[in-house]
Amino acid sequence: MQLVQEQKCFGGRQIRYQHESQSLNCSMQFSVFLPPQAEQGAVPALYWLSGLTCTDENFSSKAGAQRMAAELGLALVIPDTSPRGEGVADDPQGAYDLGLGAGFYVNATEAPWNKHYRMYDYVLNELPALVEAELPLSGKRAISGHSMGGHGALVLALRNPERFVSVSAFAPISNPTDCPWGHKALSAYLGEDRAAWAEYDTSLLLKAKGCALPMLVDQGEADNFLAEQLKPQALKAAAEHVGAELTLRLQPGYDHSYYFIASFIEDHLRFHARHLGC
Amino acid sequence: MQLVQEQKCFGGRQIRYQHESQSLNCSMQFSVFLPPQAEQGAVPALYWLSGLTCTDENFSSKAGAQRMAAELGLALVIPDTSPRGEGVADDPQGAYDLGLGAGFYVNATEAPWNKHYRMYDYVLNELPALVEAELPLSGKRAISGHSMGGHGALVLALRNPERFVSVSAFAPISNPTDCPWGHKALSAYLGEDRAAWAEYDTSLLLKAKGCALPMLVDQGEADNFLAEQLKPQALKAAAEHVGAELTLRLQPGYDHSYYFIASFIEDHLRFHARHLGC
Repeated sequence: MQLVQEQKCFGGRQIRYQHESQSLNCSMQFSVFLPPQAEQGAVPALYWLSGLTCTDENFSSKAGAQRMAAELGLALVIPDTSPRGEGVADDPQGAYDLGLGAGFYVNATEAPWNKHYRMYDYVLNELPALVEAELPLSGKRAISGHSMGGHGALVLALRNPERFVSVSAFAPISNPTDCPWGHKALSAYLGEDRAAWAEYDTSLLLKAKGCALPMLVDQGEADNFLAEQLKPQALKAAAEHVGAELTLRLQPGYDHSYYFIASFIEDHLRFHARHLGC
Repeated sequence: MQLVQEQKCFGGRQIRYQHESQSLNCSMQFSVFLPPQAEQGAVPALYWLSGLTCTDENFSSKAGAQRMAAELGLALVIPDTSPRGEGVADDPQGAYDLGLGAGFYVNATEAPWNKHYRMYDYVLNELPALVEAELPLSGKRAISGHSMGGHGALVLALRNPERFVSVSAFAPISNPTDCPWGHKALSAYLGEDRAAWAEYDTSLLLKAKGCALPMLVDQGEADNFLAEQLKPQALKAAAEHVGAELTLRLQPGYDHSYYFIASFIEDHLRFHARHLGC
């Protein structure tokens, strides 16, 4: 992996890298924040998955997460939201909710998406293997994300609880088999086989398999996407059904933006740090 | 003034307004953060002046200032960096350091700039009068800014110490009569009369008039613009010459970006809050 940019931040290092991804079959950029403690030895990492239209830069520049990550000694690993570059398929109409910036953290099986869109494998396997080989990371992992990225974080954790110690999300797409964003993305990337969709639906996965990991979810009550797209009540019902350890907080007045994320990111970092032991 | 957008943030309100500016002879947008304490009564305000190419959104979304402002009970008032809109002159070559996004906080006297470019009057008089009439602000003011905005904050405070209780800056253009950014802007906006330039040069103003206000300046030592454009040593020499209360901190490894600002904004807000009595 090649260094693109490095900037000092809260005594640590905010770094952008480029590499050739095998999973995605294209060149990718991602960002990492290494806290000051990483100068002395390996530190645990929080993987952050961003939402529709984002790159690795939105969370890096807008969430204000580095302050608390530096205090706790926690690295942040922030991938892009889709494959990128020449030859990577995009929505023919250029819609924001399919194609570039909208990988949905799935392994696509349908053409033309299946040539590059394998964000599930990328985030689960390739990226951790890369950064843990190259950077002072201990291999202890937590995962979080926003909206589409909250969906991604929950799906990855529910399907691979041995890889993470805790999972959290801001305004996740909690039941994508039952909302317009999910219908559009899952039918394009996976075809019409609903059994394949269910492997990427947090509420269905939780209901079917339970979850041993602690889960923290924040949801703004003034979020424009709440009723139609996000559906935290499906997640809550699934958690109650299986007795999972879900803390769902409805935050009055907050919307879907990074102002909402910034307001509560400290709580999420402290939550993960407790479980990571840092 | 008309509300453009309002978003809850750290228990307070991040708001964007639009109004017709008399000073600038055009329609302007600006942002305000009102801390939760503003629901109970009037609060003091920190005016933040941004740097070249910025609007009111950069500081609002990237500095992470709302967290501490909410804790301290301090409002943030964040103007744009130049007049805007149809008919507002811009650099013929579209350069980033003259015209739109580069008002330099001066009252231009030269055509074509003098029709709109009166950011000095706008920030000193029109904007405070407007927001203090319309919002729960106590009229106690501090001022800060970054780069071109650090220059603006220092110039406004040095020339009008009765208006502010304290001033701070990140990587200010400290001696614009002696750097390329300053030469270009001041000669365009003010013509070739060097006496007019001196009214907008922090180091010359400080040396000539002294300063009764406490001043805090942070400067990254890895800032690409440090030697050619920013020249904090001129400010330091002027402060020593007149015995002014300047704290100049050189921060090893930090660059000119918002990661630098975010890392130290808490110190600046606490500094101003001490002097504002909040």
